[in-house]
Amino acid sequence: MRGWMNEGKSYIAPVGIGEVMRAGGVGRVMASKHSGFAVGDYVSGSVGVQEYAALDGAQLIKIDPKVAPLPTFLNTLGMPGMTAYFGLLDVGQPKPGETVVVSGAAGAVGATVGQIAKIKGCRAVGIAGGAAKCRYLVDELGFDAAVDYKAGDTRKSLRTHCPNGVDVYFDNVGGDILDLVLAVLRRPARVVICGAISQYNNTTPVKGPSNYLSLLVNRARMEGMVVFDYVDRFPQAARDIAAWITAGKLKSREDIVEGLETFPETLLKLFSGENFGKLILKVEKSR
Amino acid sequence: MRGWMNEGKSYIAPVGIGEVMRAGGVGRVMASKHSGFAVGDYVSGSVGVQEYAALDGAQLIKIDPKVAPLPTFLNTLGMPGMTAYFGLLDVGQPKPGETVVVSGAAGAVGATVGQIAKIKGCRAVGIAGGAAKCRYLVDELGFDAAVDYKAGDTRKSLRTHCPNGVDVYFDNVGGDILDLVLAVLRRPARVVICGAISQYNNTTPVKGPSNYLSLLVNRARMEGMVVFDYVDRFPQAARDIAAWITAGKLKSREDIVEGLETFPETLLKLFSGENFGKLILKVEKSR
Repeated sequence: MRGWMNEGKSYIAPVGIGEVMRAGGVGRVMASKHSGFAVGDYVSGSVGVQEYAALDGAQLIKIDPKVAPLPTFLNTLGMPGMTAYFGLLDVGQPKPGETVVVSGAAGAVGATVGQIAKIKGCRAVGIAGGAAKCRYLVDELGFDAAVDYKAGDTRKSLRTHCPNGVDVYFDNVGGDILDLVLAVLRRPARVVICGAISQYNNTTPVKGPSNYLSLLVNRARMEGMVVFDYVDRFPQAARDIAAWITAGKLKSREDIVEGLETFPETLLKLFSGENFGKLILKVEKSR
Repeated sequence: MRGWMNEGKSYIAPVGIGEVMRAGGVGRVMASKHSGFAVGDYVSGSVGVQEYAALDGAQLIKIDPKVAPLPTFLNTLGMPGMTAYFGLLDVGQPKPGETVVVSGAAGAVGATVGQIAKIKGCRAVGIAGGAAKCRYLVDELGFDAAVDYKAGDTRKSLRTHCPNGVDVYFDNVGGDILDLVLAVLRRPARVVICGAISQYNNTTPVKGPSNYLSLLVNRARMEGMVVFDYVDRFPQAARDIAAWITAGKLKSREDIVEGLETFPETLLKLFSGENFGKLILKVEKSR
């Protein structure tokens, strides 16, 4: 979302001034002229930051609230889940026994990356800000270790918790943390570039990774991914993820804020690290 | 070589103070207790920067001066040729019709990368310093275009000569040039990290590529390569390269400096861009 607010080329077109902010969401059909959707159906799609959306239905999919609570369809069964699934498995290609590190680990994508890494037999190490998030990763989500980047010596903590080096790094944050992890890669590591939230609000140039030559020393690869490229395979991922949720192997945590009018401050919570779990804005008035 | 002079982890151990500088070279056998080598044989291997080397033979291979002049075994038929071959073909994976850009293009690795790109049906664009080198790339080696990074607007020149964007970038230099090329990648580009000669003498931290998020936008991958990993396949590459040389499709140019005692200044020519072709130090006294 933050990237779409900038002018210039990104992976999709920027949102224009005066346009409704683009957003994925879930909702209920209030009226329908489409044979595929009846009043009362629950749907997911690109509905925008607004209370009501008039859509032609082409981009909507029906969801079944008996499968999971509605917010889960915006989290592990939604874009963050798909991003984690394809970014980790397709781009990161972790093998059992390898060490997978993920930043933004208490966020929606990061928490799912770590849990899928565990499901695939890897050592999962999360990087997050603050003791509460780090405890959550280890105690609730089953990560092997967590590195609190607000607690001092991140480099040393990474080395302690990744004694054999890092085989797969899933990066959501960029900046200094990307550099620190590049310094502890192991041959032949894979670095998944999913985001760079530390850099999106910069008014100075993006901080490039000074340690990028670690890619050479470690015959490593750093590769960007955009979840929209995998849309044809979303059903497969959703089946796997739903099965893991049912089996109690994958947890979904949401941080729900109420009120359309809070959108600007709510979005900014992502940049201070204030949110804890998938940040969701509830725009429907409670009744 | 420059990297081996630093302390700390690199892709092979650093050269210690007081040790003979490590170097690949060709030479003639003066005396032998090894059944595989006779006096007068020509050999190639890690002989060090010295006039005479006493070696056990395990790391030496015999070369045939009838196949090519001796210096060619240090260039297109040596490490630079192997580096270009495997870096471009294995890591870069160019497809016919794609645009391949290489920096340090008038150097030993770069010139071979561009020529192999042409052989494989790609558009080859070289980045080099100065009009003479750029003319050489286009007029003598058959590159489609050359970008003179000393001549002003490198960004604009890159866009002009890569109208469809860059599919494969083979980077020998790092620094600002890496950043400029990252800005003109095309989906799904491959960036081969072979070296970063602009950064090796830094006393300040390495300049990381600020435009690395282009990897995300373009679903691109940046991957390091070290030629020693391909040693088992050197014979295959040497056969291909020798055939291309014989067919007149691949040229080898050397810049030969005489005198062991010139080693320090000679090495430094690489950092000012003074050399033109594979830089070779001839230590045998002319007779």
